[in-house]
Parts: sequence; structure tokens; C-alpha cells
Amino acid sequence: MVYLTRKCEFSASHYYYNPEFTEEENQRVFGKCANRNGHGHNYTLEVTVKGEPDPLTGFVLDLKQLKEILNTEVVEPFDHRHLNREVPEFADQIPTTENLAIAIWNRLHRKLTMAKLHRVRVYELPDLFVDFYGET
Amino acid sequence: MVYLTRKCEFSASHYYYNPEFTEEENQRVFGKCANRNGHGHNYTLEVTVKGEPDPLTGFVLDLKQLKEILNTEVVEPFDHRHLNREVPEFADQIPTTENLAIAIWNRLHRKLTMAKLHRVRVYELPDLFVDFYGET
Amino acid sequence: MVYLTRKCEFSASHYYYNPEFTEEENQRVFGKCANRNGHGHNYTLEVTVKGEPDPLTGFVLDLKQLKEILNTEVVEPFDHRHLNREVPEFADQIPTTENLAIAIWNRLHRKLTMAKLHRVRVYELPDLFVDFYGET
Amino acid sequence: MVYLTRKCEFSASHYYYNPEFTEEENQRVFGKCANRNGHGHNYTLEVTVKGEPDPLTGFVLDLKQLKEILNTEVVEPFDHRHLNREVPEFADQIPTTENLAIAIWNRLHRKLTMAKLHRVRVYELPDLFVDFYGET
Amino acid sequence: MVYLTRKCEFSASHYYYNPEFTEEENQRVFGKCANRNGHGHNYTLEVTVKGEPDPLTGFVLDLKQLKEILNTEVVEPFDHRHLNREVPEFADQIPTTENLAIAIWNRLHRKLTMAKLHRVRVYELPDLFVDFYGET
Amino acid sequence: MVYLTRKCEFSASHYYYNPEFTEEENQRVFGKCANRNGHGHNYTLEVTVKGEPDPLTGFVLDLKQLKEILNTEVVEPFDHRHLNREVPEFADQIPTTENLAIAIWNRLHRKLTMAKLHRVRVYELPDLFVDFYGET
Repeated sequence: MVYLTRKCEFSASHYYYNPEFTEEENQRVFGKCANRNGHGHNYTLEVTVKGEPDPLTGFVLDLKQLKEILNTEVVEPFDHRHLNREVPEFADQIPTTENLAIAIWNRLHRKLTMAKLHRVRVYELPDLFVDFYGET
Repeated sequence: MVYLTRKCEFSASHYYYNPEFTEEENQRVFGKCANRNGHGHNYTLEVTVKGEPDPLTGFVLDLKQLKEILNTEVVEPFDHRHLNREVPEFADQIPTTENLAIAIWNRLHRKLTMAKLHRVRVYELPDLFVDFYGET
Repeated sequence: MVYLTRKCEFSASHYYYNPEFTEEENQRVFGKCANRNGHGHNYTLEVTVKGEPDPLTGFVLDLKQLKEILNTEVVEPFDHRHLNREVPEFADQIPTTENLAIAIWNRLHRKLTMAKLHRVRVYELPDLFVDFYGET
Repeated sequence: MVYLTRKCEFSASHYYYNPEFTEEENQRVFGKCANRNGHGHNYTLEVTVKGEPDPLTGFVLDLKQLKEILNTEVVEPFDHRHLNREVPEFADQIPTTENLAIAIWNRLHRKLTMAKLHRVRVYELPDLFVDFYGET
Repeated sequence: MVYLTRKCEFSASHYYYNPEFTEEENQRVFGKCANRNGHGHNYTLEVTVKGEPDPLTGFVLDLKQLKEILNTEVVEPFDHRHLNREVPEFADQIPTTENLAIAIWNRLHRKLTMAKLHRVRVYELPDLFVDFYGET
Repeated sequence: MVYLTRKCEFSASHYYYNPEFTEEENQRVFGKCANRNGHGHNYTLEVTVKGEPDPLTGFVLDLKQLKEILNTEVVEPFDHRHLNREVPEFADQIPTTENLAIAIWNRLHRKLTMAKLHRVRVYELPDLFVDFYGET
């Protein structure tokens, strides 16, 4: 059993705002992240799958297929987008790094059939990242 | 004469759109950057000053003063902002990395009196950056 | 259940010396680290907590609170200090990266009440780091 | 119980080719990696061992001994080598990052007697790496 | 006048060997780099161009065009290749990082007509790189 | 003419204190850096030399010779040392990054006879560095 990790990147915009909170609560909880003009990040995504290497190829999975799934499920719909306004998962959920990792897990989990998804890691900044292993 | 460089970071949102272009021209020239919902980046700024070390302190300039100027002139007005909508320089200018480097030079140049500004470097992505030395 | 990691940095001085060893043993075991003038490092600390995102905020914990705890418990008492001479845990214990990770775990564990501490990682150098998960 | 990780690097050449495949299959499966002139990488190896710090030294293991084992078992036989032609494990096995991680685990596992080997991580590129924990 | 830099990467194999030297001289001068099975590297290329931002677009040059030129002139012919055997410049020249930087300058210089090539930087390893500015 | 840069690292301890200042002035100017127990850093040194590649070897200079000079002149005397107490240049000069870059230039300049020293860059922290080109 080996664990293979691939990184990719996307740039997106977001803000943090809960319409059930008062303006003051939004300011207190979210600070300058509550600015509804939005601000942005270069996100780095690390996706880890696990499996046994195929004796014929030495690969746990086909990296071209993995790249295609990452492009279709994450990079295309998220890159150069405003997460709150353009990504359906964040219509009624705050696009924190925590929720972003869970949303990406759910998207990839449905599509990755040739190896087992083990972990999704999302860096919002070089010094802040979130891991999700599908645990509930 | 030594050159001292300090890095700092800010996260901001922007889009590329020229109102004098047709919609098609904007798409052709700016691609997905033309999406007016905006998208964002973690920018890294490197500011280089030059001067001779003060024999009493060994410093080219007071790093606390430099940090204050970087905060007041760049981090406060740019971080967690939408560059097109909230930073005056980009009301009538496209916030490309090129124009961002020039705008930051102009802001810092006015305020840095205790050492000579030598270079402003702005990273939009880890693999794309722009340098401006005040040359015209 | 998501795992959130925050990095921070501090610079400190230390040396490795066991008073129960002879001078020769200290030299043999610790090499140039035994120089009692001390030498120093830029340490990087990664702290990982786990929990479920609050549905109202999308956060596992309040990052401002986490930052405050990291500042009070680690950065303030360790940064720009001599670990052997100024940090109580190392009065009778050698400040190796291993012991530093355990000491930081013990400090944070007492204070982190709003999420579960999962891992403390300390980089002494970019190519040498230690993880502690509170296992005994 | 603490986990200590040491990084080291080596540069090597390889190609991916299965003699049981037709030329077309090799092209389809391995793409430009099938070029038998070979191409190369700067590999980064992270080796993690676990154990309890010795109360007399504060160390999980002697870093000089670890470095020696890494040099003898991995850096010397792999660095500036052509993996397919000069490393015995790859005489009849494709030198993918997956198989490389397993080969390095097997080499280190035999020699590391003073602490328990926990994980071998091999980066082929900064955005592609494989972990092996000895699980079968 | 601003300076824009774009990074890209390629992986290649090479060896250092001068047929005019004796075997002993090759060993003495090139050490383990003289192994004619070849060894490899992940190279990073930084290309810097200079010019004035176009007032209509804010760009010094069209990044898509630059990327195309980098792909056609460098990545396609160098990536997953054996430099000594497959790149014409190194049929009669040793593919050191110095000569690689000059060869890349010559390839790009001919094609970059929309902005002035300022510098080619080639990293062979993260701690070894060469700059060429076209100076002779 | 090409420019070749080699990086190396050393870890050292220092403090900033001017005996001609009062205790209050030292505190005001140097802040927590004035703590005479010392604190430390992982320094990264980048040394750039320039020259023309030798047509027989493709090298600007012999990298083994350069490494030896860096070891003898910088790594050996600085690594795991207390700069104020153990490096002669800082007996009567404050070991700021500025002065460190100048001291390293002076040491290397005397010894580098086979290529021209172009620049010394010293990183004290990943976000703070100083360049010296020998300009006076």
C-alpha cells in the first residue's frame, strides 16, 4: 500500500459573511474577511490517493487520469472564480478553508474510482492549511 | 553600499477588463481573468532599499520604520481588498502585476526618506513576478 | 472532522551539553553543538488542531484566539531567547528538537480548550523536523 | 513517542518501459517517460523514524548514524546514477516513484536498528510525491 | 520600464565528458558527473523580459505568447530528454548549467520579438543556478 | 559572461548591543535583539561569481574549489558559533545582516582568484536579506 500525492493550484476570490449575523457580529467574527467586495488567494491543493502499485506499470493510478479529474472537478470550476458567487457549494455555506477541503473531497470522492482517496489538503496561505480525510 | 530586502504579503482580488474594448476583445486579451466577479491572489512584495550601514547601529535603516511604512502604504490599503473597486490607482488602470509594482513604487517612494528605494518586486504567483526600479 | 494547521516562527539560541557526561563524551555525542557559547536557529512551528467546523462560521476554531495562544505560550517566551538559559523546561533537559516539540505540546495542550490539539511539528532546519502527537 | 524526519537529496536518471508491452502500449501508458535515452530528476527523500528521546541526550537516535545509513544505503548507490541500468532493484521493475519508495524502505528497514522506521517519502517533483509505511 | 519574470520547469538527463580528455582527466574534473549512463535533474528556468506596460492592457507582453515560445523553444525540446544525445547544442559542447543558460538565451532571443529578453536563469539544483544576460 | 550562484547554510547566534549607547538606547534601537543571552538564526548565503565558461569544461569555475573556499572561509568559522563572541570581525562591530554580508565579501574576495566575486547575499530570515556587491 503506497500513498501518492499530487499538488495543483488555483486562484480564487471569496469573503466570509453570515446573513444570520448582524453586521457587528460579522465584523467581530470575520474581521476584514467580511468585506463583501471580496479578496483572494492562491490556493494550493494536495490530493492523496492510496493503493497498491500495478506490477505491470509500477503505478498506483494513471497520473493523466488523476490530472484530468483534478482539472474537471476542481481547477476548472474554482480557478479565477469568486467562490461565494460562482461555486454552488458556497451559495449557502461560508467558503472557509475547512469547508473548501470538504467540498473538494466530496467532488473528488465521487469521481476517483481507480484508487482510494485518502486525504485532501488545502493551503489558503503558505502558513495555513486544512486536511480532510472523509471522517464524519 | 548595501541593499536590504524585506518581504511582506497581502491577499487581494482583481479582474482585468478594459471598458474601451468590446466584450470579445476583453475575452481574447484577458481570458478568464476578464471574469468581473473577480478572482484573487496571495501577493508577495519584496522591497529593496540601498544605503550605507550606520556605524553606530550596523543598520541601513530602521526595520521597524520600514515595516510601518509597508503596513501603512501597502498592506493596510491592499490586503483583503478588491483592487479594481477599492484601490484608487486602479479606478482607471488595469491591476496587472506590472501596474501593481509601479503603484507600490510610487507609494513607497514618497515616504521612504531614510534610505533610497532601489527595487519593488511583486509576485502574483510563485512562478510570475515583476520588478520595477523607477526607470521611465 | 477536519485538521487545521497554522505555522509560526521564532529564532532562538541553544547548545547541547549534559553535565553528567565528561567533556569528551559531550564532544563525541554532541559535536559542535556542545559549544557553550551557543548557536541558533530560525525554528518553524506547525500546530495542528482537529474538530468539526461550526456551521455558523465554517471555522474549526477562532484563528485569532489560536494566534494569541501561540504568541503567549510559544513566540513570546521562546523568540530571541537562549533556550538553555531562559526557558524553564530546559534548565535540566537538553533543548533538542525532540524535547522542544514535547515542551511546546505541553504548553499548548493546557491552553487549547476550544479544539483538540492533534500534532506539534518543529523544524530546526528546513531538512530536519520532529512531530509529537502527545503519545506516551 | 516522537517522530523525527530527515531530508536528503539525490539526482538520477530513469525511463519507464515494460518489455512485455508493445511499443504502442509503452507510448500510450508511459508517454514521453518511455524515451529510452532516459530523463532525470532531483529527488528529495524524507525518512521518518519514531522512538522515545533518550533522557541522557534528548535524541531519538544519533543523527550522524542516520546520515551515514542514508548515505550508504541511498545517496551513494542512487545519486548521479541511471536507476534502470545501475540500481539492482530496477533490473526487472519499473523505477516509478512508487517502486522507488518501496525499494528505499526495504534498504533502510534492514539497517535501521536503533529506531523504528515509520515512513519513507520520495518527491520526484515538487508537486508529486509518494509515501510508504511498510504496509503490505 | 518593468521587468517581468516567468518560471517553468523541465526534467532532463545529462553527463559531463570531454572526449579530448583522458579517462583520468574526466574523472578528476567531472567526478561522478562523468558517469556516461547519465543522471538527471529537475531544472527550473526563469526568463525575464523588459518593456513598458501597454496602456490598453497593462501588460509588458502577452503571457500566452510567452508561454507558447517557452514551450516550443525549451520545454518541448528539453523535457524528458537526454541533453547530450537529443539536444543539438550539446552534440559538441558539455551541457553544464552555464552552457544550458547560454543555449536557452540563444533560442529565446531569436523568437522573442514583442519584448526585450533581459535574463535567463537556470537552476540545476535548488542551491545552484546560473544567470546569462547575453553579455559577451 | 555568465553569473553562477551557489547557496550554503550556517546556523549561528548573535545579539545587537552598542556599548557606547545607554541601556535605554540599546533597548529602543535594538528591542529584543539586545538580549545579551543571544538568539540565533539559520542563515542562508548565496555567493555569485562571474566569468566566461572554459570551453574545455563548460565551467566558469571549479565547483569543488568554490565549495572548499566557502567551507574554509564561512561555514567552518561561522556555523554553530556565537558571532559576537567567536568571529573576530564582530568583536567591535554589531553583527547585523548588513555587516555580515560585508564581512563575508571581504573573506571571500581575498580567496576567490579563479573567478570574479560579483555578489554576496545573506538571508537572516526567509523574509529579510542583504546584498553586497563590494561597492564603497
